[in-house]
Amino acid sequence: MITAKARAVDGPDKPFRAAEIKRRDLDSQDVLIEIKFAGICHSDIHTAHGEWGPVNYPLVPGHEIAGIVTAVGAEVTKYKVGDRVGVGCMVDSCGECENCRKGEEQYCLNGNVPTYAGVDKYGEPTQGGYSTHIVVTEDFVVRIPETIELDAAAPLLCAGITTYSPLNHWGAGPGKKVAVVGLGGLGHMAVQIAHAMGAEVTVLSQTLKKKEDGLQLGADNYYATSDPETFKKLAGTFDLIINTVSAKIDISAYLSLLALDGALVNVGAPAEPLSLNVFSLIGHRRSFAGSMIGGIRETQEMLNFCAEHNIVPKIEVISADQIDEAYERVLASDVKYRFVIDISTM
Amino acid sequence: MITAKARAVDGPDKPFRAAEIKRRDLDSQDVLIEIKFAGICHSDIHTAHGEWGPVNYPLVPGHEIAGIVTAVGAEVTKYKVGDRVGVGCMVDSCGECENCRKGEEQYCLNGNVPTYAGVDKYGEPTQGGYSTHIVVTEDFVVRIPETIELDAAAPLLCAGITTYSPLNHWGAGPGKKVAVVGLGGLGHMAVQIAHAMGAEVTVLSQTLKKKEDGLQLGADNYYATSDPETFKKLAGTFDLIINTVSAKIDISAYLSLLALDGALVNVGAPAEPLSLNVFSLIGHRRSFAGSMIGGIRETQEMLNFCAEHNIVPKIEVISADQIDEAYERVLASDVKYRFVIDISTM
Repeated sequence: MITAKARAVDGPDKPFRAAEIKRRDLDSQDVLIEIKFAGICHSDIHTAHGEWGPVNYPLVPGHEIAGIVTAVGAEVTKYKVGDRVGVGCMVDSCGECENCRKGEEQYCLNGNVPTYAGVDKYGEPTQGGYSTHIVVTEDFVVRIPETIELDAAAPLLCAGITTYSPLNHWGAGPGKKVAVVGLGGLGHMAVQIAHAMGAEVTVLSQTLKKKEDGLQLGADNYYATSDPETFKKLAGTFDLIINTVSAKIDISAYLSLLALDGALVNVGAPAEPLSLNVFSLIGHRRSFAGSMIGGIRETQEMLNFCAEHNIVPKIEVISADQIDEAYERVLASDVKYRFVIDISTM
Repeated sequence: MITAKARAVDGPDKPFRAAEIKRRDLDSQDVLIEIKFAGICHSDIHTAHGEWGPVNYPLVPGHEIAGIVTAVGAEVTKYKVGDRVGVGCMVDSCGECENCRKGEEQYCLNGNVPTYAGVDKYGEPTQGGYSTHIVVTEDFVVRIPETIELDAAAPLLCAGITTYSPLNHWGAGPGKKVAVVGLGGLGHMAVQIAHAMGAEVTVLSQTLKKKEDGLQLGADNYYATSDPETFKKLAGTFDLIINTVSAKIDISAYLSLLALDGALVNVGAPAEPLSLNVFSLIGHRRSFAGSMIGGIRETQEMLNFCAEHNIVPKIEVISADQIDEAYERVLASDVKYRFVIDISTM
């Protein structure tokens, strides 16, 4: 067993504390990664606070992981010591179901193994990236292109792939009008990626506060959703809307902004059910859809795409002692646009 | 002006009565049709009862129209006297917007002209097919193949195209698993068409009462949705679900029956908003979508497809005096599967 330093939380209302956790000895296909940076995702907060169901505390969150390979199992072929690598939201899946065989491990029919708050194939609880080391089977490790710094790479492993995948799947590209709802951690990635794909990009944000940022990230247009005129002016406009906001929004109003055959894709999910008027779907053969992260092959594709197009998240690097404070600031929407923990401070 | 006999209703709670209505003199591109049969669609009932907004009574419903061309305007090129033709849910559209140019006149951005309860380009209210004659611009007339009887052809103009279009658009075919929710007027067409397209077809009906009919129409499987086991057994099964039921159903439960990238398409719309859990979309990149009738080109394609595959609705032909009774029986789900008015009895 390998001992790793970590930051763990002991309950929904508890602060983070220094901890030691065990990582398994390397199996033949495992890679040992020395984690350099870990992003803070809103899902970490939901899980740490027990808002997404019961959690086995102590919990070490973190599924935006960037680091360096420091050891490899006997049969590992894809990585060698010294490689710059990343790990995202899952660390294993059955590999045999229809969806896994398609490379869509995120939709594994037998349930993939989440990077934290899951149970691995050895029956052990998984612990995430707020930690100095992690052991992951090589098939769930991706390579970070040389041109992307490790701190900036971390958020790509969740925020990047979560937005790249639906943009890719629903065909964002030249001639397509794409709207991004919310300019936060996910939204600011969606804008950059959709712009690089060649789409015309519009940000729909509550206010115009971040307009300058949005345009600088590549948005062509920026509208405030607090202004009812926005919904009149943009009715029937978009081929694709990526909704990065997890809070309950008026879905029918956003559906009305779609053109014929347009899709509104939620990448976040409010805990409560949403209400919608079916007429807003039928009127222009619109779809309301959902998308969850992306497969491993697609995650590698996204990293290569970001490297090619010089896309990186805007980050604020923090020390391990600042996690609680960072959580509070995320909840107050006081982050531009992603906190990344410098694991060397652990 | 041409005088036509018709059956009209004078208010939400009023019975049908014999009436005379005026049809316009033929414009250069108009076709005069002697109506032989008109289907009774649930939309007729909603509209006659004023449930879909205010109506200018007297109203002559009917948008499943089959008849014979008896006169043509000077510039008509597609039809001649004696041709067997049909008219569906719309009789005109702007012809210039993006959607019309794509042949999707049902989604005309300037609003198509519905066959009844609309206003035509001359500013006159439109009146539907419960009538001996109708005048329609040739672009909104379709040809009924010789092998389809006119009485059976009528329901194809709404029930047929409303189900054919989403099955076609979402790619029902060999290797695809399609479920049809509800075995009524629309459902019994969806089953036949999906089967002829080569899909594996499952009917999801409240009870097993119509199971024999469903299998005879081409369904491979038939399940009762009143049995909770159905939802357990079929979880994650279907590529496409066509929901023909307008009543409020538990959308999240039906979404859970979809496989990866599956779509649940509503062709009916309940008046009240529906509630759904976004997790059921995100989990397998599912879509909840809507579809409204189909374009004129696609309607002709559907008629040809039905002729080629010997697909006809199951109908009960009634006289003009039986319309009120037929409405009551539709509301009581006591129809197998479509009432068609014999216009010669008018």
